[in-house]
Amino acid sequence: MDFETLEVGYDIPARPGQRIDQILTPALVVDLDRFEHNLRRMRDFVARTGLRLRAHAKTHKSADIARMQIEEGGACGICCQKVSEAEAFVRAGITDILVSNEVWGEARTDRLARLAAKARIIVCVDDVRSVDQLSQAALRHGATLEVLIEIDCGAHRCGVAPGSVAVELAQAVKHAPSLRFEGVQAYQGSLQHVEDPIERRQKVEAAARATRTTVEMLAAAGMECHTVGGAGTGSFAMDAALGVINELQCGSYIFMDAHYDQVEEEGGGRPGGMENSLFVLAGVTSTAIAGRPVCDAGLKALAVDSGLPRVDRARIQYVRASDEHGVLDDPESVLDVGDRLLLVPGHCDPTCNLHDWYVAVRGDRVEAIWPVTARGKLF
Amino acid sequence: MDFETLEVGYDIPARPGQRIDQILTPALVVDLDRFEHNLRRMRDFVARTGLRLRAHAKTHKSADIARMQIEEGGACGICCQKVSEAEAFVRAGITDILVSNEVWGEARTDRLARLAAKARIIVCVDDVRSVDQLSQAALRHGATLEVLIEIDCGAHRCGVAPGSVAVELAQAVKHAPSLRFEGVQAYQGSLQHVEDPIERRQKVEAAARATRTTVEMLAAAGMECHTVGGAGTGSFAMDAALGVINELQCGSYIFMDAHYDQVEEEGGGRPGGMENSLFVLAGVTSTAIAGRPVCDAGLKALAVDSGLPRVDRARIQYVRASDEHGVLDDPESVLDVGDRLLLVPGHCDPTCNLHDWYVAVRGDRVEAIWPVTARGKLF
Repeated sequence: MDFETLEVGYDIPARPGQRIDQILTPALVVDLDRFEHNLRRMRDFVARTGLRLRAHAKTHKSADIARMQIEEGGACGICCQKVSEAEAFVRAGITDILVSNEVWGEARTDRLARLAAKARIIVCVDDVRSVDQLSQAALRHGATLEVLIEIDCGAHRCGVAPGSVAVELAQAVKHAPSLRFEGVQAYQGSLQHVEDPIERRQKVEAAARATRTTVEMLAAAGMECHTVGGAGTGSFAMDAALGVINELQCGSYIFMDAHYDQVEEEGGGRPGGMENSLFVLAGVTSTAIAGRPVCDAGLKALAVDSGLPRVDRARIQYVRASDEHGVLDDPESVLDVGDRLLLVPGHCDPTCNLHDWYVAVRGDRVEAIWPVTARGKLF
Repeated sequence: MDFETLEVGYDIPARPGQRIDQILTPALVVDLDRFEHNLRRMRDFVARTGLRLRAHAKTHKSADIARMQIEEGGACGICCQKVSEAEAFVRAGITDILVSNEVWGEARTDRLARLAAKARIIVCVDDVRSVDQLSQAALRHGATLEVLIEIDCGAHRCGVAPGSVAVELAQAVKHAPSLRFEGVQAYQGSLQHVEDPIERRQKVEAAARATRTTVEMLAAAGMECHTVGGAGTGSFAMDAALGVINELQCGSYIFMDAHYDQVEEEGGGRPGGMENSLFVLAGVTSTAIAGRPVCDAGLKALAVDSGLPRVDRARIQYVRASDEHGVLDDPESVLDVGDRLLLVPGHCDPTCNLHDWYVAVRGDRVEAIWPVTARGKLF
């Protein structure tokens, strides 16, 4: 490996076939056995319930993982949140994408419409003026954009009120040239992490009632919803049982994270019986202060918005993050410089977005390296 | 702009010459007038005090900015925190780099030693075993690595105890083949954000005492410190007055952030008289809920470890961040879909690391686009 000529790939933390102790740290590591457990478990769930799965790719931003979810994991396609993410996935060969978000502005709607020449593109609206923008963009490019009406079913973020306001917006979509009304988007992000299953169920049921009313009113107005989309990793089992949502948009299920450790499934256990498959592998770089070793994974390797990472090792805690350092509590001073630790990130989605590569491992070997295809695709 | 052929650059949020209302959001925006104010102000400060400035490039990770700091901003070189960052900067032509951190492991020390054939490379140690590793790596490559002894002067992160332990470690460096003892690293990150100037001064003075003692003991043992490095944006004026540190390693000064808004300078004002020059430009994408508009900059566009961003506009607050959304409080409902907002990030360093590009603006025009050269360089 010659530095002079190594113009591409010099920053990849590992090579397939290497032992895990050769991975340069910090690195984003996927445990393939657990990852495949999650993939199969969700595939079996949607097969059993007859629901569609549209896996949320904002979690992983990886074309390799998206392909596995579609080819082996029971997914009909993917969701993403941004036009530039959708572009990255279309370039990588994904052909059925919901941008589960509002898209505003001529530049962006134009790019979205161009994508619709290459892939099925669905998008959300919560404003009649954006119906007009999307329609004009689709017309310019001779494309058809499919549209979901986003309703606010409790998260109070985006989305129009359920019921008549949603029906009115759907009528605008129905009459707009080059748009196709596809259904309703009823995702409620904030309830996914409600820890208590009873409280979570109440919120899921309230959202389902509002969604059902809207779907029925749309049907009465002559608009059948082909898609009633929503559900996340914390709610999909409940949503499926309620029978309102027909398309599950779970993302985190493939990796899980320390925040989801706190979310209890009805009957106990982690949501959906999923397992933590995502880790940040960190190396200890300083043991100068007894009992407080320092590792090389800080704020630039781990998102801390939902809490500090959990250390996958007894009696060691991650207690403080600075930009490039993580301070550990190691009361028995068992760690030495050069030791490695698996950290379970507090929040998987923004953690993955910090990395350029997944190092996929099985046992003690690196099996594959996957680029984080849509990392940093922000607009 | 044809999507088919646009293999490179399709994700750049703006082009030089565009109006700022054409920038695709969210985007990392540098106000050039304020940026140059900060650049000149620090240049004048080091010229006046006779101290060296080694600008910390972990803040911006940009080779363009590093070059400006060296050519126009009075810096002798840069600091960075990781070997892969140093590699990115050496490739971009920077030739004087301190890795202000401990570097462990054969793979990394080897890469560091290879860099020393192309640039002056300085590195920190706080463990005698790493002296040995670095020496062997330098020997293998016929290179010389310069070494600073990192002391713990109050941050309790990395660094050996000041005084005799530091002297012992310096002796090991002095006797190690292919290493050169260069001095002491006495940076104390945690005091930079102590808001009260009196409390901050007490901590700076305590650190200076410990550092001075160590430097004097080293001199008594025949080891002159060419570099006594430390100081950050919150402390550099105090450090300079105390006369112990001779190399300032400030990073944030070039941008500032909302966290530094809380840090008061002695005599009032922001530290060093610096101005906020860094913003995340966000666009409003939903106004479906009255008084609670939503913008397109969330956790993947803004680091929130040191608090939510400040909105650069009266009576608007950023109140909740999710992955791709920011919820705003807009009590008078002045914002509409498509409106743009400048957000001052809570913490500049990890925010810059989320972006691929700086959009440098002057007045209402985009003047330059700078890549975030070392973004995501983690090991």
